[in-house]
Amino acid sequence: MSEQRCRLPGWRNKLMSAAQAAELIDDGMIVGMSGFTRAGEAKAVPLALAERAHSTPLSITLMTGASLGNDIDAKLTEAGVLARRMPFQVDTTLRRAINRGEVMFIDQHLSETVELLRNKQLGNLDIAVIEACAITEEGGIVPTASVGNSASFAILAERVIIELNLNSPMALEGLHDIYIPQMRPKRTPIPITAPNSRIGLPYIPIDPAKIAAIVLTDGYDSPSNCKPADPDTQRIADHLIEFFVSEVAQGRLSNSLLPLQAGIGTMANAVMEGLLSAPFEGLTMYSEVLQDSTFALLDSGKMSFASGSSITLTEECGARVWANLDAYRDRLVLRPQELSNHPGVVRRLGVIAVNTALEIDIYGNVNSTHVCGTRMMNGIGGSGDFARNGQLSIFITKALAKDGDISSLVPFASHVDHCEHDVDIIVTEHGLADLRGLAPRERAPLLIDNCADPLYRDALRDYFERACARGGQTPHCLEQALAWHQALERDGSMRVF
Amino acid sequence: MSEQRCRLPGWRNKLMSAAQAAELIDDGMIVGMSGFTRAGEAKAVPLALAERAHSTPLSITLMTGASLGNDIDAKLTEAGVLARRMPFQVDTTLRRAINRGEVMFIDQHLSETVELLRNKQLGNLDIAVIEACAITEEGGIVPTASVGNSASFAILAERVIIELNLNSPMALEGLHDIYIPQMRPKRTPIPITAPNSRIGLPYIPIDPAKIAAIVLTDGYDSPSNCKPADPDTQRIADHLIEFFVSEVAQGRLSNSLLPLQAGIGTMANAVMEGLLSAPFEGLTMYSEVLQDSTFALLDSGKMSFASGSSITLTEECGARVWANLDAYRDRLVLRPQELSNHPGVVRRLGVIAVNTALEIDIYGNVNSTHVCGTRMMNGIGGSGDFARNGQLSIFITKALAKDGDISSLVPFASHVDHCEHDVDIIVTEHGLADLRGLAPRERAPLLIDNCADPLYRDALRDYFERACARGGQTPHCLEQALAWHQALERDGSMRVF
Ligand SMILES: CC(C)(COP(=O)(O)OP(=O)(O)OC[C@H]1O[C@@H](n2cnc3c(N)ncnc32)[C@H](O)[C@@H]1OP(=O)(O)O)[C@@H](O)C(=O)NCCC(=O)NCCS
Ligand SMILES: CC(C)(COP(=O)(O)OP(=O)(O)OC[C@H]1O[C@@H](n2cnc3c(N)ncnc32)[C@H](O)[C@@H]1OP(=O)(O)O)[C@@H](O)C(=O)NCCC(=O)NCCS
Repeated sequence: MSEQRCRLPGWRNKLMSAAQAAELIDDGMIVGMSGFTRAGEAKAVPLALAERAHSTPLSITLMTGASLGNDIDAKLTEAGVLARRMPFQVDTTLRRAINRGEVMFIDQHLSETVELLRNKQLGNLDIAVIEACAITEEGGIVPTASVGNSASFAILAERVIIELNLNSPMALEGLHDIYIPQMRPKRTPIPITAPNSRIGLPYIPIDPAKIAAIVLTDGYDSPSNCKPADPDTQRIADHLIEFFVSEVAQGRLSNSLLPLQAGIGTMANAVMEGLLSAPFEGLTMYSEVLQDSTFALLDSGKMSFASGSSITLTEECGARVWANLDAYRDRLVLRPQELSNHPGVVRRLGVIAVNTALEIDIYGNVNSTHVCGTRMMNGIGGSGDFARNGQLSIFITKALAKDGDISSLVPFASHVDHCEHDVDIIVTEHGLADLRGLAPRERAPLLIDNCADPLYRDALRDYFERACARGGQTPHCLEQALAWHQALERDGSMRVF
Repeated sequence: MSEQRCRLPGWRNKLMSAAQAAELIDDGMIVGMSGFTRAGEAKAVPLALAERAHSTPLSITLMTGASLGNDIDAKLTEAGVLARRMPFQVDTTLRRAINRGEVMFIDQHLSETVELLRNKQLGNLDIAVIEACAITEEGGIVPTASVGNSASFAILAERVIIELNLNSPMALEGLHDIYIPQMRPKRTPIPITAPNSRIGLPYIPIDPAKIAAIVLTDGYDSPSNCKPADPDTQRIADHLIEFFVSEVAQGRLSNSLLPLQAGIGTMANAVMEGLLSAPFEGLTMYSEVLQDSTFALLDSGKMSFASGSSITLTEECGARVWANLDAYRDRLVLRPQELSNHPGVVRRLGVIAVNTALEIDIYGNVNSTHVCGTRMMNGIGGSGDFARNGQLSIFITKALAKDGDISSLVPFASHVDHCEHDVDIIVTEHGLADLRGLAPRERAPLLIDNCADPLYRDALRDYFERACARGGQTPHCLEQALAWHQALERDGSMRVF
């Protein structure tokens, strides 16, 4: 192991196996672990904990940055370790347990978890388990491919387990910018004024006496499972770029747009890739997760800087980026998610937020989380942090799901994560609806005509017309409002309408 | 008229009658007027405009800070002047026209209107009509009892009509703090770090060449129609204060709490009045509207400072305050609503937000705006700015409305303005539910047991149990989710359940 990995004097005294370290976690504890969008999660201790729980049952409250890779959430779920889980997840096994009511899932705005923790509104953090690429002379933790909530977890926890990942690129050191807002009521403004502002330390400062264990690991992050653009996502990207071009032409945006945020996943990645061939220059990102598209834009020279909280890449892109991190050093920063998603900073910078919706009602209310209003998909993630506060809040979705059995445009959203006040632009493969400055009665026809799939357009128009005849700012026929979802649950399709 | 009222050289050349000034407003214009929670609205020109429209029909887009007094919205509606209206209103006549679909009402977060305007997302402001208590040497406008959106309206409009109100207290000068965030992408942090931060000018700076008319007026603001606390609102206040006491005891709040925000109206005012006999000291407000209770708290010495965007008082309290404004000078500031409600500042200060809900579902989703999901009551106002970003987001409501025909706690919210992520505490006369850190399935029993009226408790429990049997993170029986609202619409009561 390189001397540089661990520079803390006497660190060898804290060396433990993952199994030994997992013994530090007791039944009923509140545990914070690193990990954000499958990047930089603690890899050994949670698995050792799952292992242990198979013989000696125990359950904990687990907080992370966001989703974990390496099937860790699945394995913890199967071992019955998760009594409570927050603030986000994307795992099929965990999702099922959540929807069966077995795991209490607390779905939170990603910027808020550590704010609540700091203010003692979520109990005391007993222990933090943080993946590091290095430990400094003073015990400072240099994170790996994500910061997420790691900094505040390590600072607020009573004890800290560090997983020192010997396979993580040493060049990660220097990439992170760790800044923690002061305690209220003495908090001063967070001094970020541009995506490339550096305002903190390149490591997480903690009292080394709190380091309860150092575990040497050698795993890798799971690669992104982002798929290439298909014709529909390509059309969504095209509509959106056409819109940006027209905003520039009308003087509402400059040719470098404004700092971009893009949600995780195939669709958001495709939209960002669309910018490669668009006529903009000097683009920047102020986002959560940096995906393949970010690096393609940096490589092309179209993008000058990207700020995020994690880096999640496909195998192919990862091979290129991780071996050449120095080449990106001046154009990248990874921040705590409290800052990457901070409402005040997002508002200050005027971020252009691009997030994916599960369903959207005819008035522009967005459901990002609950299938048929009940079953959790992933969680709200950072979408609310950005959609509420950015200069432009854009939601994208394919107009259909499940081979046309589901219309993403519905009369009445079965769950609302983003109210109409927080939604400016909606894009599907069929077109774009610019809802800015429009009343609900004006939004509906635009959304139906521009964004709904032709398969459902007439039925939506019919609902809207019958609703308007009854009156109201936001007309509805209450007895039919959720009928599409009922049909889906009953007959497996909304197509009866 | 005192020389101090108008210090702009040559101002007499701009003097006009209200009728003449109203002629400057053409059909189809976008007009911004002063006025926030019945305070400081332009009083003469809008009425002259209504008058004129009776003979020569015209219609405009009208933006204000928030609600207007002196029946101005009613008169403009009756005269058919309002084609479009934003961002808030509380007028019965206008509300009816909105719900008939005759006036397009754009319901907005109060912090956002001028941000959208500045970024050219709401068209160009043709003209601003602003009430002033004085005009400075350089043409600066000293507002009256509200700032609202007046500063940005005056700065962004092509022409400005000033209503110089000769009855407004001259002592208002010096009370306002006018600061306008810079244009993106060059915006620096807004330097407010405490309710008493003063960061701007005591007047609205504009190019005097833009002043198209000065109209002398002598009207008064409509008094607040806030009613005294009744036994139910008193109980709500008591529950909330008991909660604050316990938060202090547990070290989550200090004895001066954190800056308080309180929504408009009887209930919020009663809660604030409850603080008069509570064991806290050194309270502050960082709110929108300062009501009677604010001054009672300042008088009692319990509160040291109050920051707002307007002052709306009952006749009795107003008589005392307006004649003694100097006594409050060091303990008051009025800011643009963009700042009083700024997400970043609210987050920085950790505001305790107390807002009123129309209805709340068993999982804590809040409807603040739409009766039975369709008919607009007032608008979301500033509730979203505060509830999303404060340290504590509290919603209060009476458990019943309309003599028990309506339960404010329902299985499924007929409209969502504040999603469960933005709601920490709910209080009714029956008790308080602390939802922090709880999953939806844990929230429901707490809300039902602590907050619902006994009249509806069994029916709510029954719904919840049947829903849980079907599964999901947020269990529902879709075919019955809106049945309570349907019964209300059909039979005039939810009591069939
Ligand atoms: C909304 C979200 C689930 C979409 O995910 P995605 O992978 O981009 O989109 P997809 O179209 O592939 O949809 C995912 C699944 O939902 C299904 N789906 C889509 N719309 C649906 C609807 N209206 N009803 C039911 N299911 C739907 C799809 O069929 C697909 O199912 P599958 O996994 O069985 O194939 C995802 O973006 C998300 O979790 N968002 C919330 C968090 C967020 O926005 N974060 C932003 C910052 S990270
Ligand atoms: C929600 C809101 C309408 C409550 O108003 P309020 O005057 O404090 O409360 P009240 O209990 O007197 O209710 C007002 C009316 O709504 C009715 N009402 C209350 N709950 C209802 C429900 N669930 N369904 C239908 N009507 C309901 C009341 O009966 C009353 O009717 P009335 O005017 O015919 O007597 C008001 O607070 C509001 O507009 N809020 C949104 C804006 C906001 O929160 N701003 C905060 C910062 S200013």
